[in-house]
Order: sequence, then C-alpha cells, then structure tokens
Amino acid sequence: MTYILYYWPFIPGRGEFIRLALEDAGVAYRDIAREDSEEGGVEAVADVLDGDFPALAPPVLRAGELCIAQTANILCFLGDHHDLAPADEAGRYWAAQLQLTVTDWVVEIHDTHHPLGPTLHYEEQKAEAARRAAVFRESRLPKFMDYFETVLERNPAADDCLVRGATSHPDLAVFQVLEGLYYAFPRTMQGLGGAYPRLEGLRERVAARPRIAAYLESGRRLAFSEHGIFRHYPELD
Amino acid sequence: MTYILYYWPFIPGRGEFIRLALEDAGVAYRDIAREDSEEGGVEAVADVLDGDFPALAPPVLRAGELCIAQTANILCFLGDHHDLAPADEAGRYWAAQLQLTVTDWVVEIHDTHHPLGPTLHYEEQKAEAARRAAVFRESRLPKFMDYFETVLERNPAADDCLVRGATSHPDLAVFQVLEGLYYAFPRTMQGLGGAYPRLEGLRERVAARPRIAAYLESGRRLAFSEHGIFRHYPELD
Repeated sequence: MTYILYYWPFIPGRGEFIRLALEDAGVAYRDIAREDSEEGGVEAVADVLDGDFPALAPPVLRAGELCIAQTANILCFLGDHHDLAPADEAGRYWAAQLQLTVTDWVVEIHDTHHPLGPTLHYEEQKAEAARRAAVFRESRLPKFMDYFETVLERNPAADDCLVRGATSHPDLAVFQVLEGLYYAFPRTMQGLGGAYPRLEGLRERVAARPRIAAYLESGRRLAFSEHGIFRHYPELD
Repeated sequence: MTYILYYWPFIPGRGEFIRLALEDAGVAYRDIAREDSEEGGVEAVADVLDGDFPALAPPVLRAGELCIAQTANILCFLGDHHDLAPADEAGRYWAAQLQLTVTDWVVEIHDTHHPLGPTLHYEEQKAEAARRAAVFRESRLPKFMDYFETVLERNPAADDCLVRGATSHPDLAVFQVLEGLYYAFPRTMQGLGGAYPRLEGLRERVAARPRIAAYLESGRRLAFSEHGIFRHYPELD
C-alpha cells in the first residue's frame, strides 16, 4: 500500500511532521499536492477536506480505506503501524500525550506571528505579534523546553529519546520544532546556551538517522520561509 | 477501579470535558483536588504534574497503573474503555480527529480573551482581545460551527451524533463547547438564529441523557465564570 499525503505543496507546515514520520518509517507515499498530474495539485487537498469524513484543515493521510486528519492523530496511527510508538497501552498513551504537547507548542509558536488568529495577515497584527513574541521568548519557550528536557532526564531507558530507548513519533516532532525554532528565533535559541543538553542530543540523534539524514539532503525537504508556522521575522526574535 | 481526576478545583476548564465523559460512562471517580482531605487539594495536582511521567498541564487521569494527560488523549482512552468510541480502527481515528478539532476550537475560544497567551492577565491585553474576538465572531466561530454541522449532516447513521448512530466522546465535548459559547457569547450565539439545527439537536440530545441530566442538576457541575476557557466579557460579545 502506498500512503497518500494531502498537504499544501509550498510550505513545510504541519505536513512536515507527517513527512518526517513517513520518511523515517521508510514507507512508500505520494505527496499528492506536489505532483504535477491530473489528480495532483492543491485541488486534491480541497477535495479530500470536503469528503464524506470532512477535515477542517490538512494534513490528511489516506491509508487504503482509511482517511485520517489532525497531525497528532496521523502520527499516532503511523506510530502504531511502523514501530514509532510502544506497543503497550501505557506507552501508546504516553507517546500520544507528548505528541499533543508538541501540538500545543506549535500553536503557541504560530501565534507569535498571528496572535489575532489565522484570518488576518502578519502585517495587520505586527504590534500584537511583538507583544506576544516577547512573552513567548521570556516565558513560554523556556516552559516547553524545560518540560521536554525533564521528560528526557526522567526517561530511565535513554536521555536522548522521549519514550522508551528507541525512536518514537514525538522524537521526530520535537526535532522538527527545534529545527523550526532555530530558523525562526536564531538569537533567542543561541541565547539559551547549553541549558538543554538532552534536547540537543535528541536533535543530533534524529538528524543522524540514516533515512532522516538522506531526506534532509534530498529535494523532498522543503525549506522554512515566511509562510507557515516557523517564520523568521527579526523584529520578533 | 476508581479513576482519579487531577484538575483545578474551582473552574470547569478543560477538566469538565473529562468529568462529562466519566459521568456519562457512569464510572466511579474521585475529583481529587476538590476533596478536603490529606491527599486532596491543589497540591495533588502539582504532585502529579511533576511525576515520573510529567505533564505540562492538567487535566491528568489516573486509571490504576496508568497516568494520562492531555484532554483529547484522556477522552480517547475513556472512549475505548467505556463504549464512547467505535471499536473499529477507522471509527476510533475518526472520533479522535473530531476530538482534536474540538481541541483546536477550544484554544481559539480561550484566545479570544488571551490573544497574547496565558502569561498575561486579561486586563493586560484587552485591546488585543477586542480585535481577536471580532475575528473569532465573524470568521472562526462560523467556520467551526459549519464544520461540525457538516459532519452531522454527512453522518448516514444519525444527524445528532457525530460518529456512528450512538453517543461518542466528541458529542460530549461539542456539547460542552456549545454550553460554554452560549455562556461567553450569548448575543453572538443568539444571532446565529436557526442556522445550525443539527448542532442544536446534538446539544439537546446530550443534555437529556439520563446520567448527564442528573450531573448537570448536581452540585458536582461547576458553573462557568470569568476564570478558565469560557468567559463572559460583554465587550467581547
């Protein structure tokens, strides 16, 4: 079976969390909105959102008969099917909890440049963004970094894996958030110094996984830009 | 087994989504922070957040050996164990997708009064809140209402259940969001007129479920107030 990913073609965005899991799992998938074909393009995304099981927003993943939306939900599905989560009930819910905490983090990162919501452009909310970004840098960013560093510290199996002693879907997601934060807030992230050695260890470990390393070097990896979640506006850093 | 819920004792907040599922399931649970005992009170919440499997925020549910955080994650767990979700894989992920869309909605509702994030008080961000609430009323509220109305319309099994022809955890969550919206935005909600008959049908159906009806009449049901997610600030309505 070949998975089909439905996501906007020009930004990493939330779709990138799914791409990383698919790449790490080494499974076949079509990134359909990036295909220059009859059934590809952004129309494919619009169509799947308006199906019998509608989704409010992409990403959506088609897996044979199944059609699943919501980033964390898709990642839990891929975790279950491709050994990116523990098999036992406690471990599965623990991995899902961490993934949903990443979801919360991503919302707060997005809202640094869109504190008034996704309807208005950044240019219509620059003053509010400056205030929200300051609170994020000083209070919310350290709160999330502290939290995930603590999770790594308390994991008896490994201090560079969030769950068990092997890679799980939250590791891949935290890797992507860290990459995005270094892109969007380079000054702030450099200013953290060496305060989060375990998170840095996780980041290096994920980047060095053979399939992830190959993916990051490939043309499939989309660059960050001033569209999507992680945006580098120097005035917010 | 008696479940233990860890949540702030004085607000419905995100804990109320868990309480509704526990009440509907008819299971025994302790709302531990509301207990006036040695092991109760808010200290119990602080302790569980800082455990071996730390949580960024409550609610947390203890189920024997399991300790689960993140509202949607807890609700999926209760759904699986108490017939508040379909048993088949496609149905479980569909219910989870809807629950996570409720999560997104709740964040946007919260952010109408806290667009600069949870660190600052409402009084420190009133001007920003007025702008964000306007966007919410005009654009985001209809988007979410349209979405869930469409899900009900396309459900072949019932038009007042989101999933299958019986109650599931997303029904209870959407009920709570509608209750909160009528509290926080009474003018706006009345102004929607009869545009969402299926959502109104769901709301009436859930309120009439025997265990939910008994709960809503009981002293266990906490009232909405100007703390927590759903706040009635007339200037934002």
